[in-house]
Amino acid sequence: MTLSPSRNLPDLAERILGAARTRNFSIVTAESCTAGKLATLLSEAEGASKHLHGGFVAYTKANKEKALGVPPSVLRTRGAVCREVAMAMAEGALSRTPADYAVAITGVAGPEPDEDNNPVGLVCIAIAQRGSKPVAIEKRYGKAKRTEIQERAMADALSALLASMEP
Amino acid sequence: MTLSPSRNLPDLAERILGAARTRNFSIVTAESCTAGKLATLLSEAEGASKHLHGGFVAYTKANKEKALGVPPSVLRTRGAVCREVAMAMAEGALSRTPADYAVAITGVAGPEPDEDNNPVGLVCIAIAQRGSKPVAIEKRYGKAKRTEIQERAMADALSALLASMEP
Repeated sequence: MTLSPSRNLPDLAERILGAARTRNFSIVTAESCTAGKLATLLSEAEGASKHLHGGFVAYTKANKEKALGVPPSVLRTRGAVCREVAMAMAEGALSRTPADYAVAITGVAGPEPDEDNNPVGLVCIAIAQRGSKPVAIEKRYGKAKRTEIQERAMADALSALLASMEP
Repeated sequence: MTLSPSRNLPDLAERILGAARTRNFSIVTAESCTAGKLATLLSEAEGASKHLHGGFVAYTKANKEKALGVPPSVLRTRGAVCREVAMAMAEGALSRTPADYAVAITGVAGPEPDEDNNPVGLVCIAIAQRGSKPVAIEKRYGKAKRTEIQERAMADALSALLASMEP
């Protein structure tokens, strides 16, 4: 049986905070199209008060640049939804917090394409660990509902974070 | 009839983004005990893509200091839930984003008291407008459910923001 992303999410959050407690890691989020939902989800898992430092919501391009240090040249030439921006968001979050791991999501949750005409359902996810190069993935969920795109993006982001945290 | 906070919240968010559109203001959030819920709520209102820059989730004291610049001396002597910390969070959010208004929430949503033994239900809210001194209020919601405390805090924070935005 395949569980829907929304049913998997609290379980994924518990597993991540479990790994963070076991190995004494801390986490920060950097979100665009999920707008804080990922931080909220992680905050509800056991151990969040010690192992989740918090997160950034960078909704506008101007804020991706000012709050997270995403290079304006990348935003101008590539738009806000690409692997480069996701990696810059994750690295910016690490450099502005005491966290060991950052997970970043940028994408188009819809219902409309973004200002650069990126299609609804395009999402880029990045994971950064302090002292290592970040990794990024691109997903195309298609023209689904806004909440479904957000939930699928969070499930993929948390799965990638969990994989990078496990030995 | 009194509406419950949860029913008021989307309406408050729409009114705030409506005021932001009319008067060309932009907004940023700084959250502790609501952990991103306020940013998510505002992101769902019309005009968010232009008038909501995003937000900060500063869940740990270390992150309130590093990501938002809350003075460590205040955190050490007064704890994380006081008007001074709420105002410093709001001012820190303004100075790290292009926003005109910041709304900050710090408190104890429970189910346990915080590490400084602040009681469940104690919440401080601050509103900062660029170029003006921030204002803060303290609320005591008592030992309610976590989600109820979060919703009451968001309703009070958005009401305070709306009042400060209206002429």
